[in-house]
Amino acid sequence: MSDLNTCVILKSRPIGIPTPEYFDIIEKPIASLSDGQVLVRTDYWSVEPAMRGWVNDAPNYSPPVPIGDVMRSFATGEVIKSRDANFAVGDQVTGLFGWQTHAVVDGTTISRKITETDLPNSLALGVLGINGVTAYCGFLDLCQPTSGETVVVSTAAGAVGSAVGQLAKIHGCRTIGITSSAAKIDQCKNDFGFDEAISYKSPDFKTELTSTLPDGVDCYFDNTSGDISDAVMCHLALNARITICGTAAHSDWDPIPMGPRVHRQMLVARAKMQGFLVFDHKERFPHAINALANWVRDGSLKYNEHILDGPAAATDAIGMLYRGENTGKLLVRV
Amino acid sequence: MSDLNTCVILKSRPIGIPTPEYFDIIEKPIASLSDGQVLVRTDYWSVEPAMRGWVNDAPNYSPPVPIGDVMRSFATGEVIKSRDANFAVGDQVTGLFGWQTHAVVDGTTISRKITETDLPNSLALGVLGINGVTAYCGFLDLCQPTSGETVVVSTAAGAVGSAVGQLAKIHGCRTIGITSSAAKIDQCKNDFGFDEAISYKSPDFKTELTSTLPDGVDCYFDNTSGDISDAVMCHLALNARITICGTAAHSDWDPIPMGPRVHRQMLVARAKMQGFLVFDHKERFPHAINALANWVRDGSLKYNEHILDGPAAATDAIGMLYRGENTGKLLVRV
Repeated sequence: MSDLNTCVILKSRPIGIPTPEYFDIIEKPIASLSDGQVLVRTDYWSVEPAMRGWVNDAPNYSPPVPIGDVMRSFATGEVIKSRDANFAVGDQVTGLFGWQTHAVVDGTTISRKITETDLPNSLALGVLGINGVTAYCGFLDLCQPTSGETVVVSTAAGAVGSAVGQLAKIHGCRTIGITSSAAKIDQCKNDFGFDEAISYKSPDFKTELTSTLPDGVDCYFDNTSGDISDAVMCHLALNARITICGTAAHSDWDPIPMGPRVHRQMLVARAKMQGFLVFDHKERFPHAINALANWVRDGSLKYNEHILDGPAAATDAIGMLYRGENTGKLLVRV
Repeated sequence: MSDLNTCVILKSRPIGIPTPEYFDIIEKPIASLSDGQVLVRTDYWSVEPAMRGWVNDAPNYSPPVPIGDVMRSFATGEVIKSRDANFAVGDQVTGLFGWQTHAVVDGTTISRKITETDLPNSLALGVLGINGVTAYCGFLDLCQPTSGETVVVSTAAGAVGSAVGQLAKIHGCRTIGITSSAAKIDQCKNDFGFDEAISYKSPDFKTELTSTLPDGVDCYFDNTSGDISDAVMCHLALNARITICGTAAHSDWDPIPMGPRVHRQMLVARAKMQGFLVFDHKERFPHAINALANWVRDGSLKYNEHILDGPAAATDAIGMLYRGENTGKLLVRV
């Protein structure tokens, strides 16, 4: 074990998408542990869209990463020293450890012990992490799909959308994925088992959507708002359930973008629409992760990972994400 | 008892709002009863907005009233002959008896026996009828308000809105009524106990609304869509619940009118929005009517009635409703 901690630090405040010149890789001594702290040797670092917000000096869900600090990120790893009685050397854990090889953290800040140690730790950052749990709680818990229902998912090839589609199939639903390219349509159908997949960029998108929905939409997992939602909302079946998980179609909500009013469609279908934030549902996480892990094990829940190797690759990883160059959940293997 | 049935019949197909010249008053013999039928002597006839649709020869929830037929309407009355074992002479009942003094109907078509016979039968057409039950199921069941929450109601001086506001007060909520005039503001505050009432026609409507909502909106009972909803949606508190009961702000939904998109507000507040049609909740009616009747008896649920006298008054009653001339639930006393 090295005595040095290799870190990716934020060198200066990025303008726009953070590219390699905004980061530095440095080595520094591993800090000693205080009571209640543990030392985690990381094995996978996560790369996610929210990180763009974390480096900007603007109000956000989280305070900005200070210049010179280790880049904030979720990660997985093994406890190699512990002064917290809740964690033992050898425990596999996940939490906000940052882009560093050796993280000294308070035990209370660790998200969870990874108990599904027969599976790669990286899954705790994707299909057994926030993405999978978002699909589980946001779709299964909120929409309560039943066998034979029709489920529409936007950003269907993405980490959350692909999990929603597969959970719907596991529950006996017919699944329609909305995505953005022919390659992603193939991925939706071949990798994630969607019954139908269509591109919202097709000039015939509305017609294609209509043809896939002879009995209307029972559940709609909405990651986008915008034109996609407008089209889906025209097909609500009686008692439709809609989860609003994201609003990716609009980069700016001030002023609020205009669109067709949903009130009449909601009334006629007696539909239910709910805004969803996964962190409101923490009490469901252990149950959800256990169920998701079992579906991964039996092959009914598939996932794509795009793994970059080594700390240096991290510096351009957020850029890759925003340029759409990743082919699955983007990770850095330490 | 007269042997003749006095009826208001539809004389010709109205253009626009049905006024007296489209109706005739006639007398005809009371039909004899077949097995399963009962004869009801009516005491109150209902007048409601839906009746305008019922006389037009256009697709609607119900088929149009044929020319020459008794005008369709809800009514109350007493069973004076019965060939249905479920109904005895002397039973008070409500149903779609039409604008006639003596209705021969199948027992199976009677909406319910009126069991709260200590109260006027007319209430079964208003606060203990569809209006009250709509407030009960649409607000209490769907929104699940709790003490201390803030509740906003549109068309707050109306039959449904005023009941929603009072049910909210009964459950310990702070109530904000949105209405259309100074007179109705007074009615909201003085008759129906709203904590605040404002007019959406005020040039300072948005500012006034904001000032009444320091802690945001926990429950919003939406009868309008349109500008009123747009304003309320800017104030959603965390976990807000919204019932869409009506869309009165827009007379035409084809094409769908545009408005600010609700998705971001729903997501940020993790709000729940549900379309509501009272007839989906029939299993709750007995419970709701019993609860509502008790609140009427103890004085915590008030209502306004505007009662016209005699069949001749019925012919202009729908017109009165559309000209806004009624001061409460509009009824004809036979």
